[in-house]
Amino acid sequence: MPVGTQATVKALTPGDLRSAGAQVILANTYHLNLRPTAERIARLGGVHRFMGWDGPILTDSGGFQVFSLAHLRRVDDDGATFTSHLDGSRHRLTPERAMEIQALLGSDVAMAFDQLVDPRAPDVRDAMERTHRWAERSLRARGRPDQAVFGIVQGGVDPELRRESAAAISGLEFEGIAVGGLSVGESKAEMAATLDVVAETLGDDPRPRYLMGVGSPADIFTAVERGIDLFDCVLPTRVARTGQVWTDAGRLNLRNSALQDDPGPIDPACACEACRNHSRAYLAHLFRAGEMLAPRLASVHNVTWMLELMRRLRSSLNDGTFVELRDRVGATFAR
Amino acid sequence: MPVGTQATVKALTPGDLRSAGAQVILANTYHLNLRPTAERIARLGGVHRFMGWDGPILTDSGGFQVFSLAHLRRVDDDGATFTSHLDGSRHRLTPERAMEIQALLGSDVAMAFDQLVDPRAPDVRDAMERTHRWAERSLRARGRPDQAVFGIVQGGVDPELRRESAAAISGLEFEGIAVGGLSVGESKAEMAATLDVVAETLGDDPRPRYLMGVGSPADIFTAVERGIDLFDCVLPTRVARTGQVWTDAGRLNLRNSALQDDPGPIDPACACEACRNHSRAYLAHLFRAGEMLAPRLASVHNVTWMLELMRRLRSSLNDGTFVELRDRVGATFAR
Repeated sequence: MPVGTQATVKALTPGDLRSAGAQVILANTYHLNLRPTAERIARLGGVHRFMGWDGPILTDSGGFQVFSLAHLRRVDDDGATFTSHLDGSRHRLTPERAMEIQALLGSDVAMAFDQLVDPRAPDVRDAMERTHRWAERSLRARGRPDQAVFGIVQGGVDPELRRESAAAISGLEFEGIAVGGLSVGESKAEMAATLDVVAETLGDDPRPRYLMGVGSPADIFTAVERGIDLFDCVLPTRVARTGQVWTDAGRLNLRNSALQDDPGPIDPACACEACRNHSRAYLAHLFRAGEMLAPRLASVHNVTWMLELMRRLRSSLNDGTFVELRDRVGATFAR
Repeated sequence: MPVGTQATVKALTPGDLRSAGAQVILANTYHLNLRPTAERIARLGGVHRFMGWDGPILTDSGGFQVFSLAHLRRVDDDGATFTSHLDGSRHRLTPERAMEIQALLGSDVAMAFDQLVDPRAPDVRDAMERTHRWAERSLRARGRPDQAVFGIVQGGVDPELRRESAAAISGLEFEGIAVGGLSVGESKAEMAATLDVVAETLGDDPRPRYLMGVGSPADIFTAVERGIDLFDCVLPTRVARTGQVWTDAGRLNLRNSALQDDPGPIDPACACEACRNHSRAYLAHLFRAGEMLAPRLASVHNVTWMLELMRRLRSSLNDGTFVELRDRVGATFAR
């Protein structure tokens, strides 16, 4: 899922996302509730109409941002009080309010409200148990029959806690199961081990599995191998805005002097607008000149390339070439 | 002509320009010669291939920017020496070098090198006479048979000088005649009177006439009424980036609080991507959120709206409704 934090995948139109092959996108409850507010979006017909995207939208619950972005946070069993990172105004999120906001936004998939803590903090168990209580309350507060709700497995990098959390969350009547609290500074080995424990606990549970906030090309293979179906990550658009593009040959920095005379496209195998119409030399010029078209074209490319990688990944699972593709991408992006 | 100063009409792709109905665009010799340099663009196949625009391109001669943007300028009869506004490096432009640069860029229309001065400066006559000598040298230095060259009428706001300049420039074998040195701070009445004198002097000269750096919707009608065929102006994209959009009902500021709940498009009569897919409320949100999609969509709209106005203007000349359209646009944009 390309990430549209403020109801826009940065620099891209809905048409760009369709051309890139996006099937579903993510929007952020925390940001949209602060500005322009969920009530305003509801009055304007919901988040699909608001942003002009008629495909599926998943909204997160706001939990991650409350615990990573907001200021002066106070958590109690009922919910979290915090001040906005925008204007210092006071706000409160509870499982019930997080579900109400997501019902107002009208996303296709809502996420249960959860508590995120540092995986090495002493209160990982407390936060996990609170997340389970909040999961039940989120389910009871679900606002609309046309909206799926996914629960979130927490528990840091402790295998026992993750096992306990995966069992607790999968025991509830969610339409999907997410893994939260990863990609927050733990090692690659810890992420893989945690996903192993979750996969083992979930067994053949048929519901879709979503790894939140991941990730890089290599991380996605690690996770798919452990049963994950769905991802969201700002990385493709965030690095694009700095001039970094992803190709079948690895990363390329469009600010690199050597590219100023390179007449070839970013990636000859890519069919995106940037690769069809423009050279590396032109993009290098646009970045040097500080032109807005530079981050736009780089974002178009990275999102297209990433979604094409996902298509190839799905094919590889069907035709038995997954390991080969995984190793090739892993080697290319390790450089 | 939408203006692509650095070989990009800010925020827009060539596809956006085609959708907006652009027939020809302008690129700036001064900027492109400093970065990425004319030689580099020539090695990459010329400015059309460089920016991915296969329609006509007109390049200015660099004169205007040397006299408005560059630092530490020294002019002599041979040309002008100046330091780059980017990095302080020393450069020299002469009529011969300006034509050489434009030949390297490979534009469809090149402009003769001219000297711009404040219309009230004491050396308006000197600058005009120098412009005439440079016009002859520009013609002698024309670099390629597939490139038209336009001469530039100068002379400030002095009717006698303008008459003399229009006669001198139209006496040379240019493929088109431009009027320079306007829209630099003179009054609307002075601009109109100057265009009257030029029109009278040119009589029924059949060559295309181009008013440089103009303009606003109302200014364009003033000029068309006085025989001008071609315009360039950064205004549609520049004001768009600040949130100002142009509509059949006049100017609209997308940062206006009242628009935050407005579900309608910028202009219901407009067929651009912004008006087809997005509400004023969404655009108001994007501007408030500082999202890159905001200036992009506002630019798409303003360029589309302006080129549609030009189509209506051309029709009005054929069907006898020019005065009616002029007065309506004049009244709408006077508010």
